[in-house]
Amino acid sequence: MAGLPQALAAAARMVDETLERVLPKPHGLHARVHEAMRYATFAGGKRLRPFLVLNSAKLFGVDPARASRVGAAIEVLHTYSLVHDDLPCMDDDDLRRGRPTTHIAYDEMTAVLAGDALLTLAFEILAHPDTHDSGEVRSALVLRLAEASGANGMIGGQMIDMQAAQSAFGSDEVILLQRLKTGALFEFSCEAGPILGQASVEHRDRLKSFARDMGLVFQITDDLLDVTSTAEKTGKAVGKDKDQGKATLVSLMGADGARAEAERLARRAAATLAPYGNAVPELVDLPLFLLDRES
Amino acid sequence: MAGLPQALAAAARMVDETLERVLPKPHGLHARVHEAMRYATFAGGKRLRPFLVLNSAKLFGVDPARASRVGAAIEVLHTYSLVHDDLPCMDDDDLRRGRPTTHIAYDEMTAVLAGDALLTLAFEILAHPDTHDSGEVRSALVLRLAEASGANGMIGGQMIDMQAAQSAFGSDEVILLQRLKTGALFEFSCEAGPILGQASVEHRDRLKSFARDMGLVFQITDDLLDVTSTAEKTGKAVGKDKDQGKATLVSLMGADGARAEAERLARRAAATLAPYGNAVPELVDLPLFLLDRES
Repeated sequence: MAGLPQALAAAARMVDETLERVLPKPHGLHARVHEAMRYATFAGGKRLRPFLVLNSAKLFGVDPARASRVGAAIEVLHTYSLVHDDLPCMDDDDLRRGRPTTHIAYDEMTAVLAGDALLTLAFEILAHPDTHDSGEVRSALVLRLAEASGANGMIGGQMIDMQAAQSAFGSDEVILLQRLKTGALFEFSCEAGPILGQASVEHRDRLKSFARDMGLVFQITDDLLDVTSTAEKTGKAVGKDKDQGKATLVSLMGADGARAEAERLARRAAATLAPYGNAVPELVDLPLFLLDRES
Repeated sequence: MAGLPQALAAAARMVDETLERVLPKPHGLHARVHEAMRYATFAGGKRLRPFLVLNSAKLFGVDPARASRVGAAIEVLHTYSLVHDDLPCMDDDDLRRGRPTTHIAYDEMTAVLAGDALLTLAFEILAHPDTHDSGEVRSALVLRLAEASGANGMIGGQMIDMQAAQSAFGSDEVILLQRLKTGALFEFSCEAGPILGQASVEHRDRLKSFARDMGLVFQITDDLLDVTSTAEKTGKAVGKDKDQGKATLVSLMGADGARAEAERLARRAAATLAPYGNAVPELVDLPLFLLDRES
């Protein structure tokens, strides 16, 4: 696990180079939307989802340049979701990773449009012939990302999260919410490797199982940090879940119980990848590594 | 031209049946976003873009069921753009086609999410195997729609339209704005036929030329109606362009000059389709028909 921070940094550098190429250069009378897209995207994110794409692709011998394009697609899609979630009519956040959010740095209208444009760009990247020779593979990537991020995926999760009745949620509802809101994109990121490698459904299902457990570990850690950390460390407001009366696994199980559950899930996720031996240790180590993060 | 209203109505019925099938049925804790997607989509629109898809597909012998799926994709994408354009931070419209806009009928947050979900659904429909047997065709549709609707297409046009400096625009800038904001989707709608029919680039270019002229005819008519019509007839506020100091071809050329230009373009558009003879008269007649519309 010692090499994971370096591996994460290397993946981030690679995907940032790809993002630099695929994001439109600011030009013309509409340059403002290009600038806002770049502002939102180059904001010091961890690039965790591209890391998952790159390493799941490695398991199946996929060309890293192609995997990096899929990583860039998932990252611009993730970025759009942050830009829209931060809007005044949603979470109304002024700060993200210690910087003004996009609608503060620009304005609301530009933030809506930049988010829309990032979402659209994600599909443009996937459908472009540079991503894979096979049109079947490219359409499969588009279809799966659309399902994962649409009304019955990430957006559905955000809709649930924005509604008031959460104080009545039990752990089934909370797990469903998280699986949609953040889990679906992690699942796509891990499934992208076997799709790019044209591997069997068995491999796709295995990587999805891994992602499902890992996503929940990630979310529980996020909720633990919201309770125990400081704004200085995380670069965003903390204590918000409690203030907003949101149910989380931490509020339902207590911090110790939630942490124990996350450890169990992290171990199970690692075990799911046992059939691949030690081919990509970075992926196997990731869930336990996430559990110990501080931001 | 006598049969055009009937042909438009028949195309609208066909695409509405497809939309009914592809839009998610309201279910679960996130039913509200499904309901808002349907509210925005089934709002009495003319379904002009699906009409273009169906008829350009007819020229190339494409199965109407497939063309109707592409028509549904372009219609949900068009609907998302209306939902987001109507938001308070953009055009701030309370009324569309005589009904409350989505953020009035629901709320802003739901309107943002429903728009995002409709945009995502457009790509999901195109990438699904039911749309075409060939993955190459499906990815080509995704790629072209993403380009037409993204930061250098429709969204770029909306960005320009939302900026203040329009009073200084000449006709070159106004034509560029309209070509991006509304023209790009018309171009995709007409190009979809030859893409689905796996026709040559020559055919694609011809249909795009037709669409470019037709799109400008449509826009000039819109601008003329804004000057000459009533809210009762158009189902939306009129006189807004002048109130907002927006340059249009009507403000630059005068109503008579703009109408003459639109007639010239409508005739040129029809002539572009001469190589197809009388195979699809509905398409040939459409530009001149649009010029005479009252809403």
